[in-house]
Amino acid sequence: MRKEHDFLGEKLVPDEVYYGVQTMRAKENFQITGAHLDPDFIKSMASVKKASCLTNLKTGRMDKTIGEAIIQAADEIMDGKMLDQFPLDPIQGGAGTSINMNMNEVLCNRALEILGYEKGRYDIISPNNHANMAQSTNDVFPTSIKVCLCHKAVALTDALERLAEGFEAKGKEFQDVLKMGRTHLQDAVPITLGEEMNAYASMVRRGMARIIRSLEALKDLNMGGTAVGTGLNAEPEYIKLFPYTLSEITGFRFETAPNLIDATNNTDCYADVSCALKVTALSLIKMANDIRLMASGPRCGLNEIKLEARQPGSSIMPGKVNPVIAEVLDQTCYQVIGNDLAISMAVENGQLELNVMEPVIAFNIFNSFRFLTNAVNTFNEKLLKTMKANREQCQYWVDHSVGVITALLPHIGYEKCAATAREAYTTGEPVREIILKKQLVTKEAMTRILSPYEMTHPGIAGGKDALAK
Amino acid sequence: MRKEHDFLGEKLVPDEVYYGVQTMRAKENFQITGAHLDPDFIKSMASVKKASCLTNLKTGRMDKTIGEAIIQAADEIMDGKMLDQFPLDPIQGGAGTSINMNMNEVLCNRALEILGYEKGRYDIISPNNHANMAQSTNDVFPTSIKVCLCHKAVALTDALERLAEGFEAKGKEFQDVLKMGRTHLQDAVPITLGEEMNAYASMVRRGMARIIRSLEALKDLNMGGTAVGTGLNAEPEYIKLFPYTLSEITGFRFETAPNLIDATNNTDCYADVSCALKVTALSLIKMANDIRLMASGPRCGLNEIKLEARQPGSSIMPGKVNPVIAEVLDQTCYQVIGNDLAISMAVENGQLELNVMEPVIAFNIFNSFRFLTNAVNTFNEKLLKTMKANREQCQYWVDHSVGVITALLPHIGYEKCAATAREAYTTGEPVREIILKKQLVTKEAMTRILSPYEMTHPGIAGGKDALAK
Amino acid sequence: MRKEHDFLGEKLVPDEVYYGVQTMRAKENFQITGAHLDPDFIKSMASVKKASCLTNLKTGRMDKTIGEAIIQAADEIMDGKMLDQFPLDPIQGGAGTSINMNMNEVLCNRALEILGYEKGRYDIISPNNHANMAQSTNDVFPTSIKVCLCHKAVALTDALERLAEGFEAKGKEFQDVLKMGRTHLQDAVPITLGEEMNAYASMVRRGMARIIRSLEALKDLNMGGTAVGTGLNAEPEYIKLFPYTLSEITGFRFETAPNLIDATNNTDCYADVSCALKVTALSLIKMANDIRLMASGPRCGLNEIKLEARQPGSSIMPGKVNPVIAEVLDQTCYQVIGNDLAISMAVENGQLELNVMEPVIAFNIFNSFRFLTNAVNTFNEKLLKTMKANREQCQYWVDHSVGVITALLPHIGYEKCAATAREAYTTGEPVREIILKKQLVTKEAMTRILSPYEMTHPGIAGGKDALAK
Amino acid sequence: MRKEHDFLGEKLVPDEVYYGVQTMRAKENFQITGAHLDPDFIKSMASVKKASCLTNLKTGRMDKTIGEAIIQAADEIMDGKMLDQFPLDPIQGGAGTSINMNMNEVLCNRALEILGYEKGRYDIISPNNHANMAQSTNDVFPTSIKVCLCHKAVALTDALERLAEGFEAKGKEFQDVLKMGRTHLQDAVPITLGEEMNAYASMVRRGMARIIRSLEALKDLNMGGTAVGTGLNAEPEYIKLFPYTLSEITGFRFETAPNLIDATNNTDCYADVSCALKVTALSLIKMANDIRLMASGPRCGLNEIKLEARQPGSSIMPGKVNPVIAEVLDQTCYQVIGNDLAISMAVENGQLELNVMEPVIAFNIFNSFRFLTNAVNTFNEKLLKTMKANREQCQYWVDHSVGVITALLPHIGYEKCAATAREAYTTGEPVREIILKKQLVTKEAMTRILSPYEMTHPGIAGGKDALAK
Repeated sequence: MRKEHDFLGEKLVPDEVYYGVQTMRAKENFQITGAHLDPDFIKSMASVKKASCLTNLKTGRMDKTIGEAIIQAADEIMDGKMLDQFPLDPIQGGAGTSINMNMNEVLCNRALEILGYEKGRYDIISPNNHANMAQSTNDVFPTSIKVCLCHKAVALTDALERLAEGFEAKGKEFQDVLKMGRTHLQDAVPITLGEEMNAYASMVRRGMARIIRSLEALKDLNMGGTAVGTGLNAEPEYIKLFPYTLSEITGFRFETAPNLIDATNNTDCYADVSCALKVTALSLIKMANDIRLMASGPRCGLNEIKLEARQPGSSIMPGKVNPVIAEVLDQTCYQVIGNDLAISMAVENGQLELNVMEPVIAFNIFNSFRFLTNAVNTFNEKLLKTMKANREQCQYWVDHSVGVITALLPHIGYEKCAATAREAYTTGEPVREIILKKQLVTKEAMTRILSPYEMTHPGIAGGKDALAK
Repeated sequence: MRKEHDFLGEKLVPDEVYYGVQTMRAKENFQITGAHLDPDFIKSMASVKKASCLTNLKTGRMDKTIGEAIIQAADEIMDGKMLDQFPLDPIQGGAGTSINMNMNEVLCNRALEILGYEKGRYDIISPNNHANMAQSTNDVFPTSIKVCLCHKAVALTDALERLAEGFEAKGKEFQDVLKMGRTHLQDAVPITLGEEMNAYASMVRRGMARIIRSLEALKDLNMGGTAVGTGLNAEPEYIKLFPYTLSEITGFRFETAPNLIDATNNTDCYADVSCALKVTALSLIKMANDIRLMASGPRCGLNEIKLEARQPGSSIMPGKVNPVIAEVLDQTCYQVIGNDLAISMAVENGQLELNVMEPVIAFNIFNSFRFLTNAVNTFNEKLLKTMKANREQCQYWVDHSVGVITALLPHIGYEKCAATAREAYTTGEPVREIILKKQLVTKEAMTRILSPYEMTHPGIAGGKDALAK
Repeated sequence: MRKEHDFLGEKLVPDEVYYGVQTMRAKENFQITGAHLDPDFIKSMASVKKASCLTNLKTGRMDKTIGEAIIQAADEIMDGKMLDQFPLDPIQGGAGTSINMNMNEVLCNRALEILGYEKGRYDIISPNNHANMAQSTNDVFPTSIKVCLCHKAVALTDALERLAEGFEAKGKEFQDVLKMGRTHLQDAVPITLGEEMNAYASMVRRGMARIIRSLEALKDLNMGGTAVGTGLNAEPEYIKLFPYTLSEITGFRFETAPNLIDATNNTDCYADVSCALKVTALSLIKMANDIRLMASGPRCGLNEIKLEARQPGSSIMPGKVNPVIAEVLDQTCYQVIGNDLAISMAVENGQLELNVMEPVIAFNIFNSFRFLTNAVNTFNEKLLKTMKANREQCQYWVDHSVGVITALLPHIGYEKCAATAREAYTTGEPVREIILKKQLVTKEAMTRILSPYEMTHPGIAGGKDALAK
Repeated sequence: MRKEHDFLGEKLVPDEVYYGVQTMRAKENFQITGAHLDPDFIKSMASVKKASCLTNLKTGRMDKTIGEAIIQAADEIMDGKMLDQFPLDPIQGGAGTSINMNMNEVLCNRALEILGYEKGRYDIISPNNHANMAQSTNDVFPTSIKVCLCHKAVALTDALERLAEGFEAKGKEFQDVLKMGRTHLQDAVPITLGEEMNAYASMVRRGMARIIRSLEALKDLNMGGTAVGTGLNAEPEYIKLFPYTLSEITGFRFETAPNLIDATNNTDCYADVSCALKVTALSLIKMANDIRLMASGPRCGLNEIKLEARQPGSSIMPGKVNPVIAEVLDQTCYQVIGNDLAISMAVENGQLELNVMEPVIAFNIFNSFRFLTNAVNTFNEKLLKTMKANREQCQYWVDHSVGVITALLPHIGYEKCAATAREAYTTGEPVREIILKKQLVTKEAMTRILSPYEMTHPGIAGGKDALAK
């Protein structure tokens, strides 16, 4: 054990660990979730520290030897090393100061080691003076969240891209599967299963675009704002250079926010990103529920699609199989929506120069990204790819439907069509037979008008003059 | 126009109105929703004022002539008069002070009129000294909300009682309608439509009980706590007598809260009530969605129940009819859930001796009660009462189902059952035929085991020794 | 009274009203909120009808005389006439069909009147065949919501623009008001009140940009998709021409959605817009709460700013004045956040070819826009414009603060600074005196470093070599 | 590796694990959160399995040797053994079937081992036929959630009890600390810090009562309802005996739900419990925020209480200390509120005979209990116990306040009081001096009326005749 101290006093720290006294205190103070910090976040913070250190070297404020050792330590963390040196609970007080100091301590102790010193020699390399030079938790912490979100967004949008492609492939595969469209869960007019799949693809692509657009809110950094956004202790040169350095290290484009105080006080950018996930989740729920509806049955439901059996569906009902993959996507989306509310509550509760609730924001938004990426990948791999159309059943529904009458609307008017439809519903007679019986149109015209293609594509079915032909 | 003044200065007030200078200011200050105060709330506040005035007469602090005039004015408002004298926007700053002063002004000016004075003679009867005697907005306003909620809860629980009875009637009507039960939207085991209806009735009754239980939170009043709950300016005798007086006037049982400061600072009791509505709404959504599912079709859906046609369902699709009443219940429930969040945000934002966000709490919870009462009554009258079972379709699904195999589980084990089920699903063959073909059980045993009654009631279907019989 | 009928039967309609049988049915069916349809929405739908009719004239499908009469009727509604002919409850089942048919009926009856016919002569001009030509509620209703939201967004962004300008004016007015910055509500380092005001302006402008960006989601119309998005009964020419016509009429740019089926099935675009309001509301709450904090007192609080007294603040506490305008902004924002959840629930609940929950979406998002616009205007006019700085108090806090020690950090290191700060907190001694007593820096250096300008602008306070000078 | 099979085929299972083929499938299918099942939940499910097995022994359906081995296995799990044999992700599809089968497999394989057989010999002891006898996931899973919640509620209410006691202790400690009460963050009338503490205690006790009351919703079990609540395959005797057995094992009182179908279809009981946590969290946030407000400063804030320094508060601001423990309670409460929304979404989404979203419900409500228990304990131990009053500062505020004028209201009327208050605010003069200067009351009367005790307890301060004395 080594002895370390901060301004509150001394504390024993196990010799082998790279973190120090402040991390020890925070470990004791915050035992809420039992969860770990997101590894992507630790790496992202290391990249911010590296960028800061490089910038301090450029401005000449940082000692070269010390700076290079700190950078080496940061590089190691970015490579996935020492991730076990970040033992703090993600939900914590102090607006991330403990995490920032945890990082500062690890960087210093590793840098000391690299330079041949013992851990804890903060008189030589100091967590506050060196690792945190020209920085405050209040700019480092949000900047690290932003870098992490950029990384996570890549994974999620990749997953969504594959999902969209998956639906497009199904759009092609099912392009000639005629089926009944339903509105209000009531029989409407025909559509193809392929058209439905393409519509899902379109929705997914809009979700991707929404998420990418929300990232715009993250490119504005408050680095150099330090404690309250005024820039105390950060030189203008440092502020100017930092974003370029970070952009280079991470590959994402960052800029200095137009107003550093605003950017330090407010956390709406995370709410923007979380909302993008929430709205996309809402659409994914609708889609997954459609899949569950269309796969309902197999004997007593719509039974329009067939999902691969992933696992026995019941401990008591033999042979039962459930759409478990669609269900897990639904539930993940509920979690994303719940997380969004936790984030909203936190974003609302900023006060004056800072929003101290950033840790719970980070925890939830990282979880939302991670969970949703996993659920989308699962849906794509374990459901969509092997989904089959039940063509016979789809055709059966269309053949028995009444809603096709809508195609006659431009030709004979709403009132005659409605009377025909009501008769069909009441008597149970096929609608085509009633049409012919009532001589509403000729058999030829009817065939022209009620053709699958005509009924599922823009235009007056059969053409404006279908009756005259 | 008459001139009135408060400590901020003078203001002209139209001669005919009963409200005064402070109401005038608030009208100008708050123009947010354009909505009106809930009439039940105005009447409830009048009853609180009457109770307070009566109590002040009992303690001897109130002048008898003035007190009786104020009580007469309050009685008139409770009778529905002068409701147009409350012109304020429900969402307002000031924690209800404007509404309280609006009431105080109307009471005073009407009392002055009763006693033959001109309006505005606050030197004779004062809104602050007389109408507000021993009171503060901080105890009058929440107390009035509580009284109003008790009234509204009667209307809602009456509506829910009728709904439960409606479902119970359907439970009887449909008791012999055998149908497929579905879990995961996948065919499960048989159930009767009547059992489903009784389950809805049971859920509705639990909702009623939940709402009634939540009202417990409202019976504790902070009247007499005055400004911050310490009771400054309210005599102990007054505090003791008030709840009895109010109980007598309103017919609801009220008590003095065990801790007046807590009861003044905190607004969690409204959140309790709102949550009771929210949870009940969640269950009603599930029920309404079930109705929509079961009514889906009429040709290409489950088609197990028939809803009366309430209105043409489409401007373009002739003859289409939609389950619009179930849909409006769903949407009302979403509103109730949204309102609950607005309330949560407000309840969270109390500070020190008061939660100043009470007006938005009151607005939302009154709306939730009113909307939900209307929607439940609508559902009951316009959907449930005329809902019919489609017995043929229900039977059809059961006859074609595979899930009945579950009834054989105790007799031949999970594995044989599962193999039979999978064969049925794969080949499309009726499950009963496979059972016989494979000689899993005798025809007699099968008939015994797969009887409708056996499959829908507790017990090993056919009895433990069904195979041996 | 005149007799009208639809396919469900006959109904008497008062002779003077322009709406017809289907509106009558919907009025009876939906009595939930007691609220009225938003007038902007009625006008927006009229503009959609006009654009559709014009397009049908262009494609030659619409009879010229009838079309021109319908257009005249639509123009009248757009001019604010006949708004009382739309008596339906905003929360309703049927996905807006009733509102669409209400509009169709009013247009037809007015057009009939214009052409000299009696109301109800739908055999001459038909709500379904003419007013609804090439349309479905499923494309008309969402398109009308989108037009309405564009109008409402103009009003809100105008209000936010004025608010941003208001804060910028205060930024200038208060640019030399030095005050203590606070993080965690704990004394941090100095800032100017002007810098804080500019930060609010920056936040408000980001809110504006967010809302404007969210409108992008609205420009894609599904007009011509008709019932399920396949375009049945809408000619390609019509689909192509419609957005141009609507753009011309409304002045907003619209396009045909890339996938009409997706655009008909999904309602995420409203969630996008609602989220933009929600996130902006979250930031406005933080700002309004800051104002309430800074105005706290006047004797026992921070007391850094002075708000104009808007109304007496208490019925019991004489002379008390409260920050009621900030409070009403807060509450309005809670409502917006609650509304967003109602919208989320509705957006989630689309099924297959349609989301039938659109009416509750429209109700909430229109309310959110209207309420928030009013509250922002109120805040700007009734609070911000007359807000004053309490310069003496601000200076007092700075003079007594300890946090200025941070400016010495780059010069003497964290550890010495921390010891000095703790000594100041413990002894109550002014921090400047301890600095001099301990001879940490010279008096000259201290004055240089702790200058107001240096402490509130980027850079190492006093310059890198402050001690050496 | 051993080979196991289910009706979907064969799978290799590592020889050392107790789980089997269905757990293997679920592990592959669900990789969403990376989190583990809650150990309390696993133990609770084991207790349900034990109770079921005991009941099956009592009814004579279960073989004695097999049953006793299963019970021994269940006992071991209840003792905390084999918890690593439950590798599934808490968010999963299938409504808990995978977790139930995981338990069934572990029980069987351990029972087989106990009886000297090899793992996987399901022909001897079968997960479906023996471990799951007379059960369905659809009754076992919710029953296990309920048992687990009862356990968790004990921990939380214990924590809240200690918190209430902590506040009561502070109520005594601070009973003579006079301070200004504040409403709207504006100076109101005096109160004691002890009264505030007692009010928090009262609020916490109400929270406890709320949570305990919500547990009522959990006592009704659907065990014996099996697949859809009809009781297929569960004998009436079993249904009757089960709750007694479970009550005996767990020490919590359980009963059979009055309607098993309702109890199987609906999940509102979890929403009830979650709402109880949510509302309690809302109150705790208010309290924690009050603590943060009162501890604001130390130089430039209210500074009425002193919190023990838990850790350095800033990486850049030397000597700064923040109220981190209050902050972490706030954030935990936001999480609880977010979790409640995820639960609401899931509860809403039941369909027909089941709500398949139970896993995400369980995940969130278990987390809410665990996190909140931890945060409350942390708050109590690390903040409340060592919190100190700053008596001098509290007195200072009172001495400089104006609001004490309210105590004169019953004696001289609102108008004179208001004028005095305004004069004090405008001139900055002490209010007591103005009172004397204006000769509003005598010095003696003033002293009597404005005594600390009189101003903080019910009654007309100084007595009704204070001026006459």
